[in-house]
Formats: sequence, structure tokens, C-alpha cells
Amino acid sequence: MNIPQNIRIKEVGPRDGLQNEQVVLSAGDKIAWIDMLSETGLSYIEITSFVHPKWIPSLADALEVAKGIKRKHGVTYAALVPNAKGLERALEGDIDEAAVFMSASETHNMKNINKSIDETLPVLKEVTTEAAKAKRTARAYLSVAFGCPYEKTVPLDRIIRIVDTLFDMEICELSLGDTIGAANPVQVELMLEALLKRFPKEKIALHFHDTRGMALANMLTAMNMGITAFDGACGGLGGCPYAPGSSGNAATDDLIYMCAQMGIETGVDLGKLLAAARWIEEKTEMKLPSRNLQAAKSTGIIS
Amino acid sequence: MNIPQNIRIKEVGPRDGLQNEQVVLSAGDKIAWIDMLSETGLSYIEITSFVHPKWIPSLADALEVAKGIKRKHGVTYAALVPNAKGLERALEGDIDEAAVFMSASETHNMKNINKSIDETLPVLKEVTTEAAKAKRTARAYLSVAFGCPYEKTVPLDRIIRIVDTLFDMEICELSLGDTIGAANPVQVELMLEALLKRFPKEKIALHFHDTRGMALANMLTAMNMGITAFDGACGGLGGCPYAPGSSGNAATDDLIYMCAQMGIETGVDLGKLLAAARWIEEKTEMKLPSRNLQAAKSTGIIS
Repeated sequence: MNIPQNIRIKEVGPRDGLQNEQVVLSAGDKIAWIDMLSETGLSYIEITSFVHPKWIPSLADALEVAKGIKRKHGVTYAALVPNAKGLERALEGDIDEAAVFMSASETHNMKNINKSIDETLPVLKEVTTEAAKAKRTARAYLSVAFGCPYEKTVPLDRIIRIVDTLFDMEICELSLGDTIGAANPVQVELMLEALLKRFPKEKIALHFHDTRGMALANMLTAMNMGITAFDGACGGLGGCPYAPGSSGNAATDDLIYMCAQMGIETGVDLGKLLAAARWIEEKTEMKLPSRNLQAAKSTGIIS
Repeated sequence: MNIPQNIRIKEVGPRDGLQNEQVVLSAGDKIAWIDMLSETGLSYIEITSFVHPKWIPSLADALEVAKGIKRKHGVTYAALVPNAKGLERALEGDIDEAAVFMSASETHNMKNINKSIDETLPVLKEVTTEAAKAKRTARAYLSVAFGCPYEKTVPLDRIIRIVDTLFDMEICELSLGDTIGAANPVQVELMLEALLKRFPKEKIALHFHDTRGMALANMLTAMNMGITAFDGACGGLGGCPYAPGSSGNAATDDLIYMCAQMGIETGVDLGKLLAAARWIEEKTEMKLPSRNLQAAKSTGIIS
């Protein structure tokens, strides 16, 4: 096994986890949760989305949340940004990094963004350019890269073409999304073999969902190939409203536990992260999918 | 990646899954479930335990179950057997294979079997010898091999010493148990590196619990090292009553799905297995931990 000494975790729970939950959380509760996450040792938190509230009503309080959180030194606070107008609001909220997004399949892109892929790219370009002018970094998500609920397999050459264009925008990192939780380790290996021939491994992150239980197996495969950046959601909160059957981001807690056991440093305190997971579980009144959270509860490590 | 073309799954749900459930199932329901499992393509099912009902009251109907199931050609029907007396009853139930068991740590062995390790080995020897006389095979479980809830780490040299003795008994397979679901991929690799120097890979099976989400990552690691036999429980049913915090056998459903996606043959029909998982979920009135079962329900693939 050829695992890295340390990995970087991008905590996306406050955005990806809360964007489509049935339970509506107050801005105050979101702020309290993000402040808890800031104290866990996480160095990156995607705190909200500046997509129009018409599309993501549960994150309509984006600006209030961005302005309300305590900024911890050393933590990058990012937000999802759909377009130049969204970036304006995000900058008003003083976010450190803009996360732009699009899908690898035309159908998912159309359902999610209401544009074709070719229509979307210039919109993202505008955001990354304006972000750079404002001295902010930009990250790009490419959704359904490992499988689309509508088009099933997305051809690798299309993914490479899109990734080429995204890196031309000078994004600091690309996050490849397994939006429906269908990726398997062989597929991850094939995808990375192709991408790592063209793009630096330091700029590629992976975003898995644990819908079918393979998130950690996929991450392990990617780690063995030199990938060191992974998205996760505290407690395994989340899913995607436009991806039927998508349920549960990879739980940051499970990733951190596995890394700790394997001697890989994450910088995150598992106890504090589990406390944050338990807190949001109680607030949302849902049993969250994180295995470590449920194990910690059943063993009485947390109540 | 160096994965096998096919793997052999040992379905332990009817025994390991039901032995400590709070919900008491009728013998008729157990028989109906095993008969469903026999039709999924599984080639091995551990159907019950002939441990004294004082210790496992929920499987007191072992003989009735063993006599009641329909035997499908090509399926091996095994049962847990603690000692010669248990084997007598198991043979009365016409089981194909006796699964003997012990723990790698003294404390867990004492709590589980009420004997020291040295006192246990001759008892197992008697079972395997008598089973051979009756022309049945014997398999051995070594529990808490990857970590003990009482003694924490179990030294590798002790494990090797026990495994040596077990293979001297002419068991057909050793199943190394991660009873508390604490094994991680690096540990699995180190353990197998040591064991595969001494014992044939065809005779080693792995028994993971998904307590902390690492079951599939661990199995993938083992597959890459040539292991082709894995225990699983339909739906992820189960745990261990003497291992605090143990919860959830690796779900056979999740293993089969991952294998199917990776092109590894298991011979099992996932749809039929999920139907069996859904059936036992409804009977036990518990939400089972199998990711694929929950995904299939949420997407309406099964109701």
C-alpha cells in the first residue's frame, strides 16, 4: 500500500449537507454548527451556497451565515457560487474561495443549472476571473463524473475535455463528484490513471457519496494513487436533490477514523467532529449515516 | 489493482445476524428466510448455531431450523458448533459443515467461551476430528483477530500460533474475524502479509463488521492480496453480544454490489438478495445498515 502521510479534507456539510434537507435550520443554528466545525481542526469548510434562493430555499440565508460565523485563523471558508451575481453576494459575505460547479453529463447539467455544458463554461469562467480579481481562489466541482442518473456512463473523453477547460480557468482545485454514489474502486483507478497523465494530482480532489457503501474503498484507491484531497460531510449529512437515489455524502467522521487508524494525518480531532455530527443530528432530527457517529452513540462514547 | 475474477461469499446472516437480535423470530420465519437465501445464488449459508440455548436463546430452535430448510443442490449449509455435544445435534440436523470458533484474545475467549485459549483448542480438535469421521468439513473462526474490546491489540505472533494449531486440525478454511469492526486497510495488509507467508491464501477467509465503515475498504485490500473468501450478512444484520460496540456484519448486499461493479463474479443475484434483506428487515422491524438496501428502498427499486 502506498498511502500519503497526510490528506486535506474539504468539509462540505454546511452546504452540500444542508442544501436539500427537509428540516429547515435557522441561520443561528447553521452559524453555531459551522463555528463548532471551525474548532475541530478542519482547514476548509464550504459554508453555504449563493445559488438563488428560488433554487435552494434552505440556504436563502447565505449572506447572514457568511457574515455571522467566527473566522478561525488557518481555515478557508468557501461557498458555492453559480455565476457573477452569486459571486458579488459571496464577496459581500467575505468568502475566501468560490466553488463553481457543473455536471459532466448534459442532462444532469440541464436539470441542475438549466444550461448546456457549452453555455455553462463561460459562466464559470466569469466567476473564476472575477474571483481572481478580488484575490480569491476558485475551485470547480464536476458532478456525476462517475455516473449520471440520466445518462448512466459519462465518456472519459468528455470528462477530460471539460477538465481541460476548467483548468484553463486557473481553478486551484477540481473536485470530481460521484454524485449518485455509484463509483467503484476499479472505475476510480481507471479515471485517475487517465486524468493523472494530464493534470497534477495535487489539484484533483474527490467527492464521494456513500450511497452504496463504497466511499472509503474509493478513497483508499485514490490515496494509493497519490490523491490527497477529499470532500466529506460531517455526520454523512446530505445528498443531491437532482440526483435520484443520491443519499449521504461520505462522512468526514468515517474518513478521519480510517485515516487515524492507518497513520494518515488529517489534522482533525475526531471527538470534536463527532460532537458536531451529534449536534446536527439532534438539530435535524435525522439518524445520520456516519458509521462512526452511530458506533460512538451505541458504545456511549457520546450520548 | 490486482483483483480476483471471482470470490466466494459465506452468508452468515441466519446465524451471526440473528444470534443476538432483540427481536425473536419464529423457526418458520428463519426457515423461510434461509430458503429465500438459497435461491439467490449463494453457495454457502451458515444457518444456525448449536451452542447451548442457555447462551444463545434466540437460536434454541437450531435443530428445527436445520431440519426444516429446503436443501438446494450446490449450497453448503453450515452451522456454528461449540463442542462434541453440539456436533452431535448438528449432525442430527444434517449440516454440511461445522464452524468451530474461538477468540484471539484470552479475555474475549473467556467471556465468549468461558475457557482459556489452551483449554479451547482441544475442544475444537475434538469437533473437527468427529466432523471428519462423519465426512463433514470444518471451518474455524478466530474472533477479535484485528482488535479486542478488552485487550485492544492482539499480538501477531499469538495469532500465528493459534492459526498454526487450527490448521493442524485440518480445517478447510480459517475465517479471521474483525469482531468489533475496528480493522483498517493497513492492518489488514500487515496481517495478511504475515499469514500468507505461512498459510495458503485459498484457506483464509475474512469476516469484517462495518461498525466504522471500513468493511469494503478492508475487503478490497484483501482481494488485492489474493483473498477470495469473505463472510457477509444479508442486509448487514448482526453484531456480537460479547463485543461492546460491535454492530453490523459487513452487508453481503454491499459486497455483491461492489463486486458486480468491479467485474468480480460472486454468483449471487443482487435483486434477490436485496429482496431477502428487505424481508428480514420487515420481520425484525429494524432499519438494517446495508447501504444498498436503503438505496434500493429510497429509489423505489424495492418497496
